[in-house]
Amino acid sequence: MFKKILYPTDLSDVSKKALNCLLAMKSGGVKEVVLLRVISQSNAESLSQYHKHFFPGTHAHLETPGKGVAAFLESVYRAQEEEAREGLAPFEAALKEAHFKVKTRIERGVPQLKILEVEEQENVDAIILGSHGRSNLKEMLLGSVSEHVIRHSRKPVIVIKR
Amino acid sequence: MFKKILYPTDLSDVSKKALNCLLAMKSGGVKEVVLLRVISQSNAESLSQYHKHFFPGTHAHLETPGKGVAAFLESVYRAQEEEAREGLAPFEAALKEAHFKVKTRIERGVPQLKILEVEEQENVDAIILGSHGRSNLKEMLLGSVSEHVIRHSRKPVIVIKR
Repeated sequence: MFKKILYPTDLSDVSKKALNCLLAMKSGGVKEVVLLRVISQSNAESLSQYHKHFFPGTHAHLETPGKGVAAFLESVYRAQEEEAREGLAPFEAALKEAHFKVKTRIERGVPQLKILEVEEQENVDAIILGSHGRSNLKEMLLGSVSEHVIRHSRKPVIVIKR
Repeated sequence: MFKKILYPTDLSDVSKKALNCLLAMKSGGVKEVVLLRVISQSNAESLSQYHKHFFPGTHAHLETPGKGVAAFLESVYRAQEEEAREGLAPFEAALKEAHFKVKTRIERGVPQLKILEVEEQENVDAIILGSHGRSNLKEMLLGSVSEHVIRHSRKPVIVIKR
């Protein structure tokens, strides 16, 4: 039934619970996992504004007319992509050790939209999701990214709870 | 991972899609299904008010002082329970034919609350749900019962889309 599963993760604790669940689903016929980390566009942009404001001197070399902001934003993205690669490595290792075929994608964009885009592109059979992301308050019952994906996904969504 | 699954159904089309998904999950180690149909308390109450109002004569025999309304409501519930038994029979048959252990429960109450209550009582490993029930508009992206269960369930929820 679920041979190829999309597993978007923001590396939060509840998202790691989904990894354990996936590993246990190996015997249930899951063969392939698309591991996805989306670098949030708005987070990168905020971070780059913040840094420019509070540490203006350190970015002086990037402040060439017309190109400065874009170049700085690009450096923020690259740093986050590097962090994502490191963060995803143990997930990838655990899945490969359990003999899953693994494809890792690190994308930039609006997380909930990018997840649905990759769902289509990769033609997965289901999505597995933690009910919350990193950015959600403990008190919330469902994160906004998860909620959007559950509502708009065309494929079954397996929601792992905190 | 998911050995025992709770499958609440309102016999709607999308809920029947969840049945096919469950059948396909047999090879994935699912052994036991708790099939649940909740007779909605508020629906039964509305229906009984409606009938009394438009067909007052036909319920005259139930209109004994102090007991009439309760007795009539009871007869509405019983008719709906009978309908549920008939509606669930093909689900039960399909699951048994696929060698699942099946327990069927027909309960009265508020569907989303009763589903969570039965989840606890039966100590299931996951819930499988259609994204919509019968009462939901085509335009909606997620039904209110499903949404409540996804938010409040303590176990993984597998959401099957329309």
